[in-house]
Amino acid sequence: MFKKRENVAAIEEGKLLSPKFDKDGLIPVVTTDIKTGEVLMHGYMNSESLKKTIETKEAYYWSRSRKEIWHKGSTSGFVQKVIEIRIDDDQDSIWMSVDIGSGASCHVGYKSCFYRSIPLGKVQDSEKIEMEFKDKKKQFDPKIVYKGKPNPTKI
Amino acid sequence: MFKKRENVAAIEEGKLLSPKFDKDGLIPVVTTDIKTGEVLMHGYMNSESLKKTIETKEAYYWSRSRKEIWHKGSTSGFVQKVIEIRIDDDQDSIWMSVDIGSGASCHVGYKSCFYRSIPLGKVQDSEKIEMEFKDKKKQFDPKIVYKGKPNPTKI
Repeated sequence: MFKKRENVAAIEEGKLLSPKFDKDGLIPVVTTDIKTGEVLMHGYMNSESLKKTIETKEAYYWSRSRKEIWHKGSTSGFVQKVIEIRIDDDQDSIWMSVDIGSGASCHVGYKSCFYRSIPLGKVQDSEKIEMEFKDKKKQFDPKIVYKGKPNPTKI
Repeated sequence: MFKKRENVAAIEEGKLLSPKFDKDGLIPVVTTDIKTGEVLMHGYMNSESLKKTIETKEAYYWSRSRKEIWHKGSTSGFVQKVIEIRIDDDQDSIWMSVDIGSGASCHVGYKSCFYRSIPLGKVQDSEKIEMEFKDKKKQFDPKIVYKGKPNPTKI
């Protein structure tokens, strides 16, 4: 179902979908909220999860921590309904707009994974950078929702 | 200036910036338009380009095709003024909101790199997927702007 990548003009200016998966077989995915436009998460898909997402209109990713296809919301219930999928010029990254209702997309409990802002301006090399929490209200308690499951965050 | 990654709680719930760079020393970056919210591009930064972006408030990436620090707009003139930078829960991806004025961020000439939409629904394995152009108007002619420079798109 994906066109073979054969020439740059067809990849950039053509109409046929020919995604580029990296050496691990993955393509990065930016997921935004269709209502607010905010970036909810940054994930990865393999060929199978991209196909399942296109066909079912629900977001499937590749979980790098569990090394398996990941139907977003299968544990938390916060399924992402896919409204639109776009691909970029060289077809090596995806932008997906989703509807999460009043749900959340971050395993820490916030609506968006991007709840901290980095201050801008000069910094000393010896200095650490202190961020600001832009979202302080969790939508759910991960200790309850993900009880007994390993945390995907790796050091 | 970046805190050492030592424990999951500090990475997820702490205030200190401790980004995770992958085995190539890179972190993925989603760049959105501060005015419209649309995703303009998906790129990568190394440690030095992240530091330069924070300090100068202009977007610096790592060019994977040229293998060098890349001051966005240095050839085209379409510099990205950085309004906000956020980092995600496990600090392995960045969301940057930028002001590009009436400029563009895509080397093909469109405003956003994500100018094609993938249709949703069942597809046959033998069938190719035909996308829809959502943006048809180029902001500039890449043949003029990037004259003599190699195209970064790789097959």
